[in-house]
Amino acid sequence: MNETNTGSITNFDYWKSAYAGRASNLSVSEVRALFAVVSRPEVVSLAGGMPDVSELPTEGLNKAFDSLVSTRRDLALQYGGGQGDAKLREQIVEIMALEGIQGSAEDLIVTTGSQHGLDLLADLFIDPGDVVLLESPSYVGAVGIFRHKEADMAHVHTDNDGLSPEALQQSITELKAQGKKVKLLYLVPTFANPSGVTIPTHRREEILKICESEGVLIVEDNPYGQLYFDEVPPDAMRSMSEQHVVYLGSFSKILSPGLRVGYVLAPPAIREKLTLANESSILSPAMFGQMLVSEYLTVNDWKKQITDYRDIYRQKRDAAIEAIDKHLPDIQTTRPRGGFFLWVTMPEGVDSKAMLPLAVSELVAYTPGTAFYGNGMGKNNLRVCFSHPSVERVSLGIQRLAGVINNQIDLLKTFDAE
Amino acid sequence: MNETNTGSITNFDYWKSAYAGRASNLSVSEVRALFAVVSRPEVVSLAGGMPDVSELPTEGLNKAFDSLVSTRRDLALQYGGGQGDAKLREQIVEIMALEGIQGSAEDLIVTTGSQHGLDLLADLFIDPGDVVLLESPSYVGAVGIFRHKEADMAHVHTDNDGLSPEALQQSITELKAQGKKVKLLYLVPTFANPSGVTIPTHRREEILKICESEGVLIVEDNPYGQLYFDEVPPDAMRSMSEQHVVYLGSFSKILSPGLRVGYVLAPPAIREKLTLANESSILSPAMFGQMLVSEYLTVNDWKKQITDYRDIYRQKRDAAIEAIDKHLPDIQTTRPRGGFFLWVTMPEGVDSKAMLPLAVSELVAYTPGTAFYGNGMGKNNLRVCFSHPSVERVSLGIQRLAGVINNQIDLLKTFDAE
Repeated sequence: MNETNTGSITNFDYWKSAYAGRASNLSVSEVRALFAVVSRPEVVSLAGGMPDVSELPTEGLNKAFDSLVSTRRDLALQYGGGQGDAKLREQIVEIMALEGIQGSAEDLIVTTGSQHGLDLLADLFIDPGDVVLLESPSYVGAVGIFRHKEADMAHVHTDNDGLSPEALQQSITELKAQGKKVKLLYLVPTFANPSGVTIPTHRREEILKICESEGVLIVEDNPYGQLYFDEVPPDAMRSMSEQHVVYLGSFSKILSPGLRVGYVLAPPAIREKLTLANESSILSPAMFGQMLVSEYLTVNDWKKQITDYRDIYRQKRDAAIEAIDKHLPDIQTTRPRGGFFLWVTMPEGVDSKAMLPLAVSELVAYTPGTAFYGNGMGKNNLRVCFSHPSVERVSLGIQRLAGVINNQIDLLKTFDAE
Repeated sequence: MNETNTGSITNFDYWKSAYAGRASNLSVSEVRALFAVVSRPEVVSLAGGMPDVSELPTEGLNKAFDSLVSTRRDLALQYGGGQGDAKLREQIVEIMALEGIQGSAEDLIVTTGSQHGLDLLADLFIDPGDVVLLESPSYVGAVGIFRHKEADMAHVHTDNDGLSPEALQQSITELKAQGKKVKLLYLVPTFANPSGVTIPTHRREEILKICESEGVLIVEDNPYGQLYFDEVPPDAMRSMSEQHVVYLGSFSKILSPGLRVGYVLAPPAIREKLTLANESSILSPAMFGQMLVSEYLTVNDWKKQITDYRDIYRQKRDAAIEAIDKHLPDIQTTRPRGGFFLWVTMPEGVDSKAMLPLAVSELVAYTPGTAFYGNGMGKNNLRVCFSHPSVERVSLGIQRLAGVINNQIDLLKTFDAE
């Protein structure tokens, strides 16, 4: 049947037999449907990982725009190079230095959000069947990219200190024994999406040592590193190795995701290939967006702005944890020290995907745990994102969610008892 | 040897053995090096296909920004949906109607320039070895994408009325007889890049009939259709068929390429897959850029702006043709009635790529013809882009170019005579 089911509409697909093999790996993400839910004001969305852009001062944005128009207007309106604006890349070097990274603007590529950086990188390395190692759980957007590239995704055991080096070594050994090509290890080492956990320095060193010895390239995705609430997190893994780590960064969480400006720091040969891939894909990243970011950094006190964000998100994290302690005292959750997320583990038998419509009817939304795995795991997990709603609504949302979860657990107990 | 040559620098490439198969198809485009050349003010660049953004009124841009900040600021700064802003899509429907297209905003996807639309579409349809049919010559950026996707590119005979329907039928028949899968026909039917030629209505109908009968999807790329200088061009091919044409449009030539806002109009099932692919690749197109375009269209007289562009580019076209008639009277060139380009055919034996450094030393740049083929053809051709320099500098550039070409022809004659 030449039919494709797109939600409620069934479209006849004349071209179905013409699609490439990889097209079958494009599936509706579990996060996408939530964009519609989030827009209903009565629902508290703990779902999409959105920053609180209402906290960005309009004055700073206006100053950046005025400065851009008066200094580099025609360059901003024109095509640019595939590697991105040179001035912005110099500024990114300064930002990365905050996390111990000594990188050169020459080795940076600006991308359409760090998502596109990961997409280009995966395209560069992954032949169908190649293995990508991931945290358990891992970022939904990365799982989507690797699925689309027909990678074999292997999730490695992860605990409250992030990815386990022992489990990593064991996975690589087993996969290689099966004749698999293990190409990449994708990590969000600091305030991970979705778990919120952070890998301590000693584990970073062990993971790096294993990957160096096994010839596996580490892809370090670090959008949240600057958003710490308690102590300063460990330096980025890229600070420990230039050759074995490709680093992805982003302005989406410290400025605005609507500008789609991210970046990749890579060894020269990879950087050169990524630049070519960027050009092939989009000709050049948007000069206007890049230069607006660059002017924003130039004319505003962006370090102060990040400090303000830390305060705002800390309050929301605190509200989330307090509400969990109060309403879900027996449920296992991570305790993030930065970032946007915490990870809830419910008793076996509670299905977070099946529970979602019930939650929405109680006016709260979240992301089901299976979204963060390439292998169907995560059924009894869910991700709470506390960054977007107000402090009060974070509390309210978790209270509502607790009601739904506790109901499910009661049902489960009743069912078990019968 | 794990080495990759990147211009003058030879980088050791530790990861060379880890790249995917398709990575070997990423090559430095012949257009890229020209971005460096174009920035030297003494060189008249007839190379990169850049619009003259200096003609965009700053007042209109300011009004658009102010309107955006006062009406949809937080939406513009936030993540959006993978299909793009709904208001902008409604406005695009109006723009497409100018070329006879009856499309729905529901069937539109906003992309990061139309280049990304083509990249996503190629990714959706092309397995390695699948055939893409192209004009002779074809757009350099499309050739790059199809090479990257490991397509088999077949250039079809093209004359001053664009692609030949007879040659198209013959190519398809031959390729199918060889067991090839002929997936796409990529066309710039109106004011083509690089030739400047336009396919008349009767040929459009014949081409469509052939593709319908042979099951080949037409990809109609139409960035220049509104920039006509003489009579109004034929309606878009998409106006003749909803099912067999995927339409690519762009704001790069009528507003600004620095915003990277293009769009794809596709049958519902393809549109749904492209939206998923867009999300996988970049999460969502930049809301800020999309909404800035949308506000620009809302608060400015954009139709008047396009009329102004027609006048500006007509003058440049006239200057180019006049200079060619004066300085290169015996050389064969196309005579574009719109768009940015004309195509020069020099005598056999003149090598436009080898000639480029000579031209640059005479302070003029162009794009060598081989850039527009996937098969090495186009050696004695070159593309002249008259859109970016001032009228006076278009004349000056062609005068300089004529000196270089005439020198080459004289050399060739001397060599032949010996």
